Amino acid sequence: MRRNRSKPQPVKPEMAAGNGLLDRRLFLQGGGAVAAALGGFAIPESATAAGLPIEPWMTTLGPDPLLYDRPSRFEKDVVRGDWASRTGFPGVGSLRTPHHLLTGTITPNGLFFTRCHTGIPDIDPDKHRLLIHGLVKRPLIFSMETLARYPMESRIYFLECGGNGELLYDDKPTQVGVRRLAGQVGCAEWTGVKLSILMDEAGVDPKAKWVSAEGADAVGMTRSIPLSKIMDDAFIALYQNGERLMPSNGYPMRLFLPGFEGNMQVKYLRRIRVSEMPTMSRDETSKYTLTRPDGKSSQFNYQMEAKSVITQPSPDLMMKGPGFYEISGLAWSAYGKVAKVDVSADGGKSWAPAALQQPVLSLALTRFRLPWQWDGRPVVLQSRVTDEPGYVQPTREQMIANRGRWANYHANCIISWGINEKGEIKHVYA
Amino acid sequence: MRRNRSKPQPVKPEMAAGNGLLDRRLFLQGGGAVAAALGGFAIPESATAAGLPIEPWMTTLGPDPLLYDRPSRFEKDVVRGDWASRTGFPGVGSLRTPHHLLTGTITPNGLFFTRCHTGIPDIDPDKHRLLIHGLVKRPLIFSMETLARYPMESRIYFLECGGNGELLYDDKPTQVGVRRLAGQVGCAEWTGVKLSILMDEAGVDPKAKWVSAEGADAVGMTRSIPLSKIMDDAFIALYQNGERLMPSNGYPMRLFLPGFEGNMQVKYLRRIRVSEMPTMSRDETSKYTLTRPDGKSSQFNYQMEAKSVITQPSPDLMMKGPGFYEISGLAWSAYGKVAKVDVSADGGKSWAPAALQQPVLSLALTRFRLPWQWDGRPVVLQSRVTDEPGYVQPTREQMIANRGRWANYHANCIISWGINEKGEIKHVYA
Repeated sequence: MRRNRSKPQPVKPEMAAGNGLLDRRLFLQGGGAVAAALGGFAIPESATAAGLPIEPWMTTLGPDPLLYDRPSRFEKDVVRGDWASRTGFPGVGSLRTPHHLLTGTITPNGLFFTRCHTGIPDIDPDKHRLLIHGLVKRPLIFSMETLARYPMESRIYFLECGGNGELLYDDKPTQVGVRRLAGQVGCAEWTGVKLSILMDEAGVDPKAKWVSAEGADAVGMTRSIPLSKIMDDAFIALYQNGERLMPSNGYPMRLFLPGFEGNMQVKYLRRIRVSEMPTMSRDETSKYTLTRPDGKSSQFNYQMEAKSVITQPSPDLMMKGPGFYEISGLAWSAYGKVAKVDVSADGGKSWAPAALQQPVLSLALTRFRLPWQWDGRPVVLQSRVTDEPGYVQPTREQMIANRGRWANYHANCIISWGINEKGEIKHVYA
Repeated sequence: MRRNRSKPQPVKPEMAAGNGLLDRRLFLQGGGAVAAALGGFAIPESATAAGLPIEPWMTTLGPDPLLYDRPSRFEKDVVRGDWASRTGFPGVGSLRTPHHLLTGTITPNGLFFTRCHTGIPDIDPDKHRLLIHGLVKRPLIFSMETLARYPMESRIYFLECGGNGELLYDDKPTQVGVRRLAGQVGCAEWTGVKLSILMDEAGVDPKAKWVSAEGADAVGMTRSIPLSKIMDDAFIALYQNGERLMPSNGYPMRLFLPGFEGNMQVKYLRRIRVSEMPTMSRDETSKYTLTRPDGKSSQFNYQMEAKSVITQPSPDLMMKGPGFYEISGLAWSAYGKVAKVDVSADGGKSWAPAALQQPVLSLALTRFRLPWQWDGRPVVLQSRVTDEPGYVQPTREQMIANRGRWANYHANCIISWGINEKGEIKHVYA
């Protein structure tokens, strides 16, 4: 058996930062030391009267497996949620991913967030068409069948709604958890056709600088995208995590723009119109703009800045008494790989570097983990990501100072969880 | 915008091997050259009478999204299938992954293969327990809640049934497709607790050499595993692709042994008994052994040898006339990374190296792709993987010569798809 593993170096369970944060390498030295240093949680067998009970499922023939599997009935609370509509119109809103109940970096397809504007269209893929036209030599129409003939590529990328975490602009910390505050981001392996291949076939006019992408949902979602992005790494996504896109994620095809805000990555993609100027559609003028303190709006904010969030512990979960915990969370950036995630248990006074789950991929969610010994006293947990180019996730104060309170989108400040002596976890500003 | 991309080198669409196999780097030079060289598949807009039609879903408010999303109703045929039971007993059999309809490397949770022996147990996670006992200082019992307190790790690994592709031992090529012939392998991001941590807490006796792992399904699936593997990289898997294990994949916990045959990675894990000797259970004596030509059986064949399969084109799909195709498939090995995949279109006379989807991960499914110009004449497509240590996937002749015809398990020979002039695709021996 071949191994590619660096030999673990002994590490004492020393404090790496205030309020019990431990060295991220603690577990590399093996379980014995961990158990000895922190105390296990197992129940000694001698404490049970008659060993393991025989449960009904151990003596009964179970049903045949499902042709398409779904989670156990005991996991019924692990669903997308926090349906939020600001308008009250039917079909307008967002269902968010329960990251506080998930782990790893891949978001399962059933739980990937969605933001929709006129409900979920029931598109017949045999009838769906994609048109590329405008400033091109040869306007072209693609069916699903013709698209399937082109070469494909697969990439693991995060996808984040521009409005993810918009409540962080609120004056007071709204009492919500990870799902509501950071549940509009996910990560999947996307497969599709590189758009530059189709654009080259259509023959783009040298005058062209923009495209306008339009969806086949009833709202006709329309966004302008710089042609440079389209020709660089944009693709037509047909699959997520191996299977066809889910209906709420753009089935049968969506535009994918690595790192750009989700709204631009038009779902149910129907039309790409090449132009000299942006379209100035509703969703890039009255919406998805950053309102500045002077009342003017900043338009065309494409890339999602570096951000991180602690998913466990977090609100909607409870601490189970003092002792050992693993702090775990997600970090990402549109500007490359996650370089570092620091964790604080004292509201930002001291920081300890977290372990990053390998491999760390560019423009993908990155899972971080750090061992922690909680002494049962009140603490404030925070995470802070630094990305490859060196950008550091701002504090909330810095974000507000920079953008004002009305920006609404691209909220990427440090998120703080306050834990009290009862073990309750709340969203706080710190 | 930052890029980490090597500059593509111009490549002529030259033949890389017989019967139209092209250079794997063809697409790196950009879409224009591809379109020019191969001819696009798009429909000129001028060919349609009135542009794009307005479909009903573009004018109607759709339903709200589901709390747990599921595939479009138009994808109803993309399911696990080929339920095969050799015994006729209820609850005994396998549902296989339709890899011919999937792409990428991550297998979605709904479509991950399952092999079950007494149906799917309906386990209440609050009542489920894991016992570690036998040759240990402190026999320990773990509930889901206590296990959740331990540090976790996530890894992307393939998982393959020991019986995947057993029909390849048949005298004549059985007329089945990818799902039946290679659908008992999948790849996911698994998260759980390293077993060595729990074993160290229990305190393993120096005399111990084996463990016996037992499931909580009604069959009480039991397999022996060398203690060295348990202490090396085994873990208790609790999550697949971020969410809890699916019921047919061992919910609420399964043993995970990277690279070992699936049957050893006991689902519904209930008990780990540490011992000096293997248990000689039913599934390591009368089953999951390789029957040799002399009638004796070879026991304890752990690791799944390097293997590859072309998923597109493949049986159950049809060619759509001569012209450009992308050949795509999966490769994997329990002995490290996939180093190389070669593809042949002339039954093994000449080979061209395929492009490997990045990043290539150790012990994970690897997607390969190669452009191909089909001239419409009969061909035989094959793929052949070489793994990191240099092991080369054998031809069927070599496998039979080495193992005989009765081995039943660990079938890893080259798989051949014959395409006739009508575009029909069949399983052939070549």
